[in-house]
Amino acid sequence: MKIDILSLFPAMFEGVFGESILKKAAEKGAVEYAVTDFRQFANNRHNSVDDYPYGGGAGMVLKPEPIFNAVNHLKKEAESAPRVILMCPQGERFNQKKAEELSKEEHLIFICGHYEGYDERIRDHLITDEISIGDFVLTGGELGAMVVTDSVVRLLPEVLGNDQSAVKDSYSSGLLEHPHYTRPANYEGMTVPDILLSGNHAKIDEWRMKESLRRTYTRRPDLLKEINLTDEQKRWIDEFKNTIE
Amino acid sequence: MKIDILSLFPAMFEGVFGESILKKAAEKGAVEYAVTDFRQFANNRHNSVDDYPYGGGAGMVLKPEPIFNAVNHLKKEAESAPRVILMCPQGERFNQKKAEELSKEEHLIFICGHYEGYDERIRDHLITDEISIGDFVLTGGELGAMVVTDSVVRLLPEVLGNDQSAVKDSYSSGLLEHPHYTRPANYEGMTVPDILLSGNHAKIDEWRMKESLRRTYTRRPDLLKEINLTDEQKRWIDEFKNTIE
Repeated sequence: MKIDILSLFPAMFEGVFGESILKKAAEKGAVEYAVTDFRQFANNRHNSVDDYPYGGGAGMVLKPEPIFNAVNHLKKEAESAPRVILMCPQGERFNQKKAEELSKEEHLIFICGHYEGYDERIRDHLITDEISIGDFVLTGGELGAMVVTDSVVRLLPEVLGNDQSAVKDSYSSGLLEHPHYTRPANYEGMTVPDILLSGNHAKIDEWRMKESLRRTYTRRPDLLKEINLTDEQKRWIDEFKNTIE
Repeated sequence: MKIDILSLFPAMFEGVFGESILKKAAEKGAVEYAVTDFRQFANNRHNSVDDYPYGGGAGMVLKPEPIFNAVNHLKKEAESAPRVILMCPQGERFNQKKAEELSKEEHLIFICGHYEGYDERIRDHLITDEISIGDFVLTGGELGAMVVTDSVVRLLPEVLGNDQSAVKDSYSSGLLEHPHYTRPANYEGMTVPDILLSGNHAKIDEWRMKESLRRTYTRRPDLLKEINLTDEQKRWIDEFKNTIE
């Protein structure tokens, strides 16, 4: 997979793309990152990328030319038709399903604005996707592009080792994870539940499933609506429903 | 504000904390960042920070000692009681309201795990908040901590200039933003709506409000339920309801 980022702050990406799984994925050849400062495509005297909004008002607006030029340049070099993704608060909410969809593509181009709005013609004529990572205000699209990149790249074949794949799988049950404990069994008077030290694996599995259901019911009841619970799971939920409320 | 980050990959933060608004905020003295590798608090022969889970299963679990030791060390040096924030998929969903709440604190400590789960005793006895930035799987808590930091720091007094404050305000209306346009009025045959070139500011304001309502109605109808619409706004929505559906 090729991942192109268009940003006015390319140095922001160095730490994140240069560490851990994202770095290893590039070393394995599973992904190639390129961060381009789209100011170099401004083609005007002051290399300006933004301008005042038509109709007045505060704030600046990213001009169409630099971004159209940059994307068209990347498309010309590309072997396949890329997804062109605008990071913006008005976009489709990012989730794991979208990560899986994007992980099947060969080429992603992320457009990251910074404070400014985007000229609407970029939205209307250049992009394939608008993505928001949540209902909060960020300084620019860069962190969102890193978040999407991280979640997509770790889904590419051979990027994760077995240990991490297992962790991934535990998310895809649709439930929140049960509590985890490791050594020591007694840390400063805080102990591990006896059941986990019992060696009774059937009981341990049951405890874990119950705790997973309990946590999901307490914190994210919306998730329970989206999965098919077994009769046993429904009964367990009924059991602790009364103790919680 | 003091922001402490506990992570096994401190270099991930260099690019993001060293650019743009986050960098300027530190230069102005509004915030101080410190990223600590909690492996240095492991206090065991191999500096190991994780171990196998009690009760068996795949994946590793972050041990309690290194994280308790690191947080207690930071608390000892602290002038005020910090918020201790665990970044994890089971946490409270981050939003702008939470950003505003955290921006009033003097000291935030973020704990960033990486692939592994956290020993539950960290959750039960050490932290004040659990935060998730969304329903997607990331390699670690680092990107989430950057996202929360960015959204919080830009709310601190004197961090944003006037231009960017204005942009911030446009989000807080509760509606998605109307389209923006800047020069040229005709870019490769793609033109700007005539109304924005008319100089009639009353008409422009009306157009912008209608487009803002239209975009919110189309993309995020859930947001409309949370604001008090005027009678005029309700009428406008009714007008284009029929043309959209």
